[in-house]
Amino acid sequence: MGRRNDHSREQQREMAIAAAELLIIQEGIVGFSMRKVAKAIGYTVGQLYLLFKNQDDLFLVLNERTAEAVFSSLHDDIQGEDDAAEALRKLARGYIAFALRHPNRWGLLFEHRMPVGQSVPAANVRKVRRIFELVEQQLAELLPGANQEDLRLEATALWSGVHGVAVLAQSRKLVWSGIEDYGLLTDRLVQGFV
Amino acid sequence: MGRRNDHSREQQREMAIAAAELLIIQEGIVGFSMRKVAKAIGYTVGQLYLLFKNQDDLFLVLNERTAEAVFSSLHDDIQGEDDAAEALRKLARGYIAFALRHPNRWGLLFEHRMPVGQSVPAANVRKVRRIFELVEQQLAELLPGANQEDLRLEATALWSGVHGVAVLAQSRKLVWSGIEDYGLLTDRLVQGFV
Repeated sequence: MGRRNDHSREQQREMAIAAAELLIIQEGIVGFSMRKVAKAIGYTVGQLYLLFKNQDDLFLVLNERTAEAVFSSLHDDIQGEDDAAEALRKLARGYIAFALRHPNRWGLLFEHRMPVGQSVPAANVRKVRRIFELVEQQLAELLPGANQEDLRLEATALWSGVHGVAVLAQSRKLVWSGIEDYGLLTDRLVQGFV
Repeated sequence: MGRRNDHSREQQREMAIAAAELLIIQEGIVGFSMRKVAKAIGYTVGQLYLLFKNQDDLFLVLNERTAEAVFSSLHDDIQGEDDAAEALRKLARGYIAFALRHPNRWGLLFEHRMPVGQSVPAANVRKVRRIFELVEQQLAELLPGANQEDLRLEATALWSGVHGVAVLAQSRKLVWSGIEDYGLLTDRLVQGFV
């Protein structure tokens, strides 16, 4: 049993987040429940709901952490890369490598939807926007005349395309085409933008 | 209760397939069970397993039907279109429109995975390959010098990209970028291939 009185509210939240992340890694969104998270840290479900308003609230926190991890991993991938086209190729391959390494965390980021009528909080959107901005920065070097709106369209189209390869690679559906080397596919997509 | 003795085995399979498709439309893969299918047609689960070896076997049939429906819908979309680039844009938009119109059937096609160690049967691969071939035919007009292997890479990269837009449009994740007009995004992706 956890001894919740020994921990500050912030520590209790951190424990719950860590337990929830482990559960997502092990069982994915399908096997997730607030009850299992509570049990893992020796809390009652009622105690857990004092820390997180509901499951969506907890998922938003997990997804912000995943978005931070994606950003950080991609940021490292292109450190010291001066060629913008090569940086885009590295970002694309790095994005898919992350998805394949962390399928369930990455899955939650894209599968979780807010209940009808509720929008994703701005803080969450900002974390994901940072990933786009990495792409926009490279595109800006290649398209010096493009304005911010153009760059956003270019970055969204390219990122959507790379996301598609990631989804198909992860679910092993590229077998349908016979081409399973995802790097070849992302390089070809990037080529259309440089 | 269904009176199974009134129906040929082929009719029984057709009934089960129709009930399974309805259940997927209504509840998606998450709410699907062989028990519910059997109940819907007044069979026992044991009787259903005489018609389909297992759930994967039934899902493969449903997915072949969905692949046929995608092919047929896209084929219609480009009837009479002489401009290959415009045909590609229509195929891309048509693909996403199908996904948005039939989210759960389309979802099953991409979410269902064979058990470890079993590969997707050739008949199933062929049905999906036909969708690619529509894309390859248009690309062949635009790239008269390309060989079959080149065309397959081009078609797979483009289709993966469009698939990504479809996935993000369907899960309403394009909100992250602020660009939710999927047609703009697919047009930009196609532009990289023409």
